[in-house]
Amino acid sequence: MSESNVILPALRSIEMNLLWFVLASALVALAYGMYIAWKVLKAPQGSKEMIEVAQAIQEGSSAYLSRQFKVMGIFIALITVLLYIIYAPLYPNNALLPIGISIAFLLGSFASAGAGYVGMSLAVRANVRVANAALTSFKNALEIAFQAGSVSGMFTVGLGLLGATIIFLIFRQDAMKVLIGFGFGGCLVALFMRIGGGIYTKAADVGADLVGKVEKNIPEDDPRNAAVIADNVGDNVGDCAGMAADVFESYEVTLVAAIILGAATLADKGFQAIYGTAAALMALKLIIYPLLVRSVGVFASIIGTLSVRGKDTEEIGDPMKPINFGFWVAAIVSIIGFMTVNFFYLKDPKTGAPDWRFSLATFVGIVLAVVIEQITNYYTHTEHAPVKETSYASKSGPATIILTGFGLAQESSVWSILAIAATIFASYTIFGGNIALSAYGVALAGLGLLTTTGFILAMDTFGPISDNANGIFEMSGALKGKGSRAEMIVSRLDAVGNTTKALTKGFAIATAVIAAIALFRSFITEGGLVSTGIQINETNVFIGLLIGGAVPFLFSSFLIKAVSKAAFLVVEEVRRQFREIPGIMERKNKPEYFKCVDIVTTAAQKELIGPAILAIFTPVAVGFTFGIAALGGYLVGSILVGQLLAVLLANSGAIWDNAKKAIELGLHGGKGSEAHKASVIGDTVGDPFKDTAGPAINPLIKVMNLVAIIITPLILRDFPIGIKIPIVGICLALIVLATWLNKRGSLTGE
Amino acid sequence: MSESNVILPALRSIEMNLLWFVLASALVALAYGMYIAWKVLKAPQGSKEMIEVAQAIQEGSSAYLSRQFKVMGIFIALITVLLYIIYAPLYPNNALLPIGISIAFLLGSFASAGAGYVGMSLAVRANVRVANAALTSFKNALEIAFQAGSVSGMFTVGLGLLGATIIFLIFRQDAMKVLIGFGFGGCLVALFMRIGGGIYTKAADVGADLVGKVEKNIPEDDPRNAAVIADNVGDNVGDCAGMAADVFESYEVTLVAAIILGAATLADKGFQAIYGTAAALMALKLIIYPLLVRSVGVFASIIGTLSVRGKDTEEIGDPMKPINFGFWVAAIVSIIGFMTVNFFYLKDPKTGAPDWRFSLATFVGIVLAVVIEQITNYYTHTEHAPVKETSYASKSGPATIILTGFGLAQESSVWSILAIAATIFASYTIFGGNIALSAYGVALAGLGLLTTTGFILAMDTFGPISDNANGIFEMSGALKGKGSRAEMIVSRLDAVGNTTKALTKGFAIATAVIAAIALFRSFITEGGLVSTGIQINETNVFIGLLIGGAVPFLFSSFLIKAVSKAAFLVVEEVRRQFREIPGIMERKNKPEYFKCVDIVTTAAQKELIGPAILAIFTPVAVGFTFGIAALGGYLVGSILVGQLLAVLLANSGAIWDNAKKAIELGLHGGKGSEAHKASVIGDTVGDPFKDTAGPAINPLIKVMNLVAIIITPLILRDFPIGIKIPIVGICLALIVLATWLNKRGSLTGE
Repeated sequence: MSESNVILPALRSIEMNLLWFVLASALVALAYGMYIAWKVLKAPQGSKEMIEVAQAIQEGSSAYLSRQFKVMGIFIALITVLLYIIYAPLYPNNALLPIGISIAFLLGSFASAGAGYVGMSLAVRANVRVANAALTSFKNALEIAFQAGSVSGMFTVGLGLLGATIIFLIFRQDAMKVLIGFGFGGCLVALFMRIGGGIYTKAADVGADLVGKVEKNIPEDDPRNAAVIADNVGDNVGDCAGMAADVFESYEVTLVAAIILGAATLADKGFQAIYGTAAALMALKLIIYPLLVRSVGVFASIIGTLSVRGKDTEEIGDPMKPINFGFWVAAIVSIIGFMTVNFFYLKDPKTGAPDWRFSLATFVGIVLAVVIEQITNYYTHTEHAPVKETSYASKSGPATIILTGFGLAQESSVWSILAIAATIFASYTIFGGNIALSAYGVALAGLGLLTTTGFILAMDTFGPISDNANGIFEMSGALKGKGSRAEMIVSRLDAVGNTTKALTKGFAIATAVIAAIALFRSFITEGGLVSTGIQINETNVFIGLLIGGAVPFLFSSFLIKAVSKAAFLVVEEVRRQFREIPGIMERKNKPEYFKCVDIVTTAAQKELIGPAILAIFTPVAVGFTFGIAALGGYLVGSILVGQLLAVLLANSGAIWDNAKKAIELGLHGGKGSEAHKASVIGDTVGDPFKDTAGPAINPLIKVMNLVAIIITPLILRDFPIGIKIPIVGICLALIVLATWLNKRGSLTGE
Repeated sequence: MSESNVILPALRSIEMNLLWFVLASALVALAYGMYIAWKVLKAPQGSKEMIEVAQAIQEGSSAYLSRQFKVMGIFIALITVLLYIIYAPLYPNNALLPIGISIAFLLGSFASAGAGYVGMSLAVRANVRVANAALTSFKNALEIAFQAGSVSGMFTVGLGLLGATIIFLIFRQDAMKVLIGFGFGGCLVALFMRIGGGIYTKAADVGADLVGKVEKNIPEDDPRNAAVIADNVGDNVGDCAGMAADVFESYEVTLVAAIILGAATLADKGFQAIYGTAAALMALKLIIYPLLVRSVGVFASIIGTLSVRGKDTEEIGDPMKPINFGFWVAAIVSIIGFMTVNFFYLKDPKTGAPDWRFSLATFVGIVLAVVIEQITNYYTHTEHAPVKETSYASKSGPATIILTGFGLAQESSVWSILAIAATIFASYTIFGGNIALSAYGVALAGLGLLTTTGFILAMDTFGPISDNANGIFEMSGALKGKGSRAEMIVSRLDAVGNTTKALTKGFAIATAVIAAIALFRSFITEGGLVSTGIQINETNVFIGLLIGGAVPFLFSSFLIKAVSKAAFLVVEEVRRQFREIPGIMERKNKPEYFKCVDIVTTAAQKELIGPAILAIFTPVAVGFTFGIAALGGYLVGSILVGQLLAVLLANSGAIWDNAKKAIELGLHGGKGSEAHKASVIGDTVGDPFKDTAGPAINPLIKVMNLVAIIITPLILRDFPIGIKIPIVGICLALIVLATWLNKRGSLTGE
């Protein structure tokens, strides 16, 4: 029996009012998003040539997303039906609930896709406007780029909060189950967007570089390269759409987990002893509190983004400064906000004084965000020892640069996981070891970590917009005779965009892991494992753990292979065009950009099926074979290895990327030196590490946790072997199919 | 209270006789080892020039080992005293026991070091004899190389079995505790030998290659390279001494774990219910059975090695065939052997019929050996798809070869861990889910896996001997005018040596993990965690797990860095000699080989302190901070991540190495092509992966498990915080020191 089936008291008028307030703030986020979108779109687009390039990128991006949505659509439709089939017999007396879960799943997937879609369509429209603004003003260029980024952030926050609040208002007592459906929809779409976008962006990038930079010796973003539009599209589908969907669902599932764990406190003996007759009301408050924290986050993010202002001075300023300032404003506003909420709403029922522990736990999440940012910054910024050391290693060739970067990235993984362990320990200490409250505390830390989501996504989307603006300059030739100031402005924004992208990546991993841990706690509650525990000394649990740890390895090997395969197709096509279309090199003829866009789009869709199957069906197979406790072991193994591997991949890629940049800025011989060549090789190895395999691990671990929660009631029914065998059989057959899909078209040249 | 404190019945005369038999078979192994050593040393050594080169290698190796032993000596002495201090107050009424544990620790470390020393000193004497034999006969060359390898195997088996049996005969009831000391000694020395040897061999190799092959364009093993002797010494200290010590302790600790788990069955309620009054006797038998299996292994290995016979035919045969044949002979003889023991000794007390489950569990280990061998072979052999695909990827440069190899190695990790999960599951199924028996079954599988240790070490040592024989030819110029047949014989042996080295590496990892799992089971027993369990849903256990998983990452990052640092020193020295000693390039003057040997020896010693501290003191810190259950979580995390990472590192290295070989054999343009250059880079990245960091993870996870078992009684005492804080403080200070030691001398060129 699920231990979360507790009866909460009815909502009082104060809770109702608060919920309406939360709903209103979600609408504020959406309205504000629309307002800045309108503001950005109002800005002028520049010359005909620039608009032409920008339109090509827009078309490519839309083409990709519409194909992506079709493939996802099939999966989503199937799973919507499957969810109904799973839940309908479980709730024979409540016809609304299974339908609600299915619809919530559908809506969650739409919301996640929508957040990605809106963010991306604005980014591909803002790039040309940023480029145009840079021709006259640093301030305007910076602000347009950042505001366009905030649209993505506001829609993510608005849609996430709106969905959760509406579901809560409609379903009340059963909201937890429906919210799981909503979160799962978002999570699955994020998985697809991360995998597809990650494969797309790196296949196009690596493919373009291998022919352009290495074979033909033409610079990056050169219009003679047939893959150049695909490369620019890739930045958007990977970094904008993929990241937005990913953060959307971390945002969503942390909220869901907090609500579930808030409700679960009521079932805890220790909690009951502490609060006595006030326990039920307190649990209700713990459910409302996360929604309020989110609501605070909306306003904090808006104020933060409004604080990012550039200045037009003679010397071009450092764009990182106003962005950092904005982040601190957002962080401080949220802290004040949730402390205020805590002060008025969460009081100790005995003394009547505010119980600050809840703010403190939320605050821990903000500290974690800062710590993770510091770790990422230290390991991947060109000014610190690790990148310096790695670029120095390039003097003795590509092998030493790779070894040095790999070793340092392993080290950074260790610090990140210790930071997460410290967060859990902090929550445990704050709540004096009460298991239910400290589990809730971890979810609160996740909420804290994600309070400023609106701002952080703005920072992230800023990267591809600036990168694209740079590309538009190169391709349109708009800078001819316009002096170098505009170029410098854009390249400054671009460089800072790389930093913000790296920072948000570290942040996304941490949120994913904290979200997964919170989900894992919910799984323990749903699985009725609070009292028996998940005993790792039991054989089946240990086996589950080993399998769970193996999955991120297999998953990332799938993705690395997929990028190689797709990049190979791009290389062939670019080579073909150079060979068969006369005059490309002399700029007499344009290459057929859309052929490349089409090839990567198709390849990315094909390759995402295998990893998606792995994520969905492996936990089902383990659960039905080895039981619920083993499934717990499985989740733990996947979180542990997933975290270590994701940071290793993300940071090694960033270290190599920046080691190359440091050399390009003049270290060890600069551009064209042997050291530089070595560093380009390191960077290419890092590309699928940091932009495909690494980030895709985030939704992977969350999807697996959600799948586990969803199938838990079925596993607990302990079906006869005659039902279990076909279920496990189908799962295994699908996993074999996934492996085969990934293996086919192996590049042995045979 | 430790749950292994059960009272076993006294030994009957049958057990006494069996123990004497086991003791005798240990002596047989040693005697047979000495006999083949004598036989090998009898073979002629060849020309003066060859002997000169060989002597230089011998001197270098001895210099290294004696320095290594000095550094280890300090640690060993400290820990011997520390063990006495830990155990003396625990057994106030038994003065003999703490002294016994300390002495056993000392003896275990001597035995492990001895196994490494003997194996290596014979290998460095056999290399020249193999080279000389190759001048006239394939058969003689093959047989000398293999026999010399078997000496290492026989001493390992003989010393291991002798030590365990004597301890058992002396201490009887308390033998388990003393055996832990013995195993720990062996394990710690193996850790040192693996780390030191691994750093040595790769620093010399990479350093020699970076100047020789890359800068000066001279071939491998060219006598003009000042690091060439160091490189040859490295093969011996890494692959012979390091591997022998590593396998010695897997051999030893599996036996120790089997004995502990055999005794622990008696405390199990289920076991008592099954066997009733016969339970105590049955448990005694389960303690004796592992010793008998080991004894069977001695004879199986001897017969196996005797079956490896070459033939002198016109065309040079494939050396892999007789070696494979020998392996199968050894495997089949052991199966027959332990089934015989099972038939006579392990009967069902009720029916009197043999209880075949024990043979079956042991047999599972042999199946695992074969499966692991197949996985390794598939992924790393030049004839299968993975290596082909990787070498094909070299056509588009070093980045793609690295990505392809990395992805494939991740995949191979997944299959390896699934094989291990299947082994555990098999043992669980065989014993019908009885926890105590199935834990014992896993240890039996480990015994099965290691039955043919004597043979497998022979296979392993065969590699460096052949490799050195090749080097001696190159350096002595002995082949001038002697035709190419001898050269072909030696290079054939060398190529097969690479395969056997890769196979035994996969095997060593599997044995380490199974041994660690068996030790983990013993830890659960010792820690009194059988009934409460290690609940991963508890916060402290989860934190322990995260930290445990992080340690292999930090450890391998330490080692990769250490190799880079040491290789850098070698590069500087070789460059200096080329610059300062006139006429080296024209062969008018010899380089100062011993300068390089000395540099690597010193560097390897310095660098091993950090990783060793990490291995010993992290579990202590976790145990005293978070408690015994968290320590269990820690061990599980380290086993999971350790296994995945070790296989990834070992197999990616082997894949890159063989992709290079496949190209050298004529694929994609052959030697000197762009593809070949790319593959050399891949190979260099793989060097410290496969020969330093990967193999060192084996002793790491075993040492940590043993440390956990040893400190368990102290943790269970639950000291007041005033004692705990200084203990944890000292550990943390040491870990910080280790990190500092590794960081110092960073290569930023500043």
